[in-house]
Amino acid sequence: MTKLSMHAVSAPVFVRMLKNLSSILTSAEKQAKAKGYDPTVLLNARLAPDMFPLTRQIQIATDHAKGCVARLAGKQIEAIEDTETTFAELQARIAKVLAMVESYQPEQFEGAENREITIKIPNMELKFSGLDYVNQWAMPNFYFHCVTAYDILRANGIDLGKKDFLIG
Amino acid sequence: MTKLSMHAVSAPVFVRMLKNLSSILTSAEKQAKAKGYDPTVLLNARLAPDMFPLTRQIQIATDHAKGCVARLAGKQIEAIEDTETTFAELQARIAKVLAMVESYQPEQFEGAENREITIKIPNMELKFSGLDYVNQWAMPNFYFHCVTAYDILRANGIDLGKKDFLIG
Repeated sequence: MTKLSMHAVSAPVFVRMLKNLSSILTSAEKQAKAKGYDPTVLLNARLAPDMFPLTRQIQIATDHAKGCVARLAGKQIEAIEDTETTFAELQARIAKVLAMVESYQPEQFEGAENREITIKIPNMELKFSGLDYVNQWAMPNFYFHCVTAYDILRANGIDLGKKDFLIG
Repeated sequence: MTKLSMHAVSAPVFVRMLKNLSSILTSAEKQAKAKGYDPTVLLNARLAPDMFPLTRQIQIATDHAKGCVARLAGKQIEAIEDTETTFAELQARIAKVLAMVESYQPEQFEGAENREITIKIPNMELKFSGLDYVNQWAMPNFYFHCVTAYDILRANGIDLGKKDFLIG
């Protein structure tokens, strides 16, 4: 029997999507090299001048994943500096966050649906229950940056399909 | 006390995001008119030649929302023809799907985490538990198309921020 729990609706989702994101980046780097251009060009690509480039999309996606599991478990969020400038460094960041997410046990999320979670954003403080935080903040933010990373690559001629995003 | 349930992790998420998507489309249409070009140009815009245009992104996003709630409740999925060619028609589709999603009561999703759900895609049949279906199929697909709709608009000069996507 599948068990619905706060862990089940968060950690495995991040794990799956981060693994797919990692594969997508591997494929993008390989394709750039095959076409004979510097793959780091892709890291600085963006969909609009006032949108974040690929590197920042990955940084923020991973931040939401590690922030979510830590907050739901009532733990301190471990900081990662935003210093990546290569595909290898972004892959290392994803691997580090994957290990963080996988280090949590389902029991640590018990009752997390009612944990009060406060998010500070510029000029605003948002208060959520743990459940609303997952549904209204962590997941939409996480997906926003994962999908935008995919979209940046597709808009730059990288050959990917939705299957790469969904299934890996 | 917040209650974690299969309804809580699906229906309200669709409702919230579809309302935000509707507002984003309203804003995009208004901005196109203010700039003096035909807003339907945006409906045919895409991020890559082999990606779907905006209209199709909205159609698929709404299909995943109505498909998910119907499948979880064990009901027939109500079909909507993919015939929209204007912003008004897409808004009507979103409104129709919002009404469908809102028509379900939480009780109808009881035990849905263990309901077997089969998805047929070209050359593949995917079998999920209800919980895995939400986490691995319905939500990532839904977000994929909602975010790509947003990204298409941003890449075409429409002034939007992540707040419009997240909060509305």
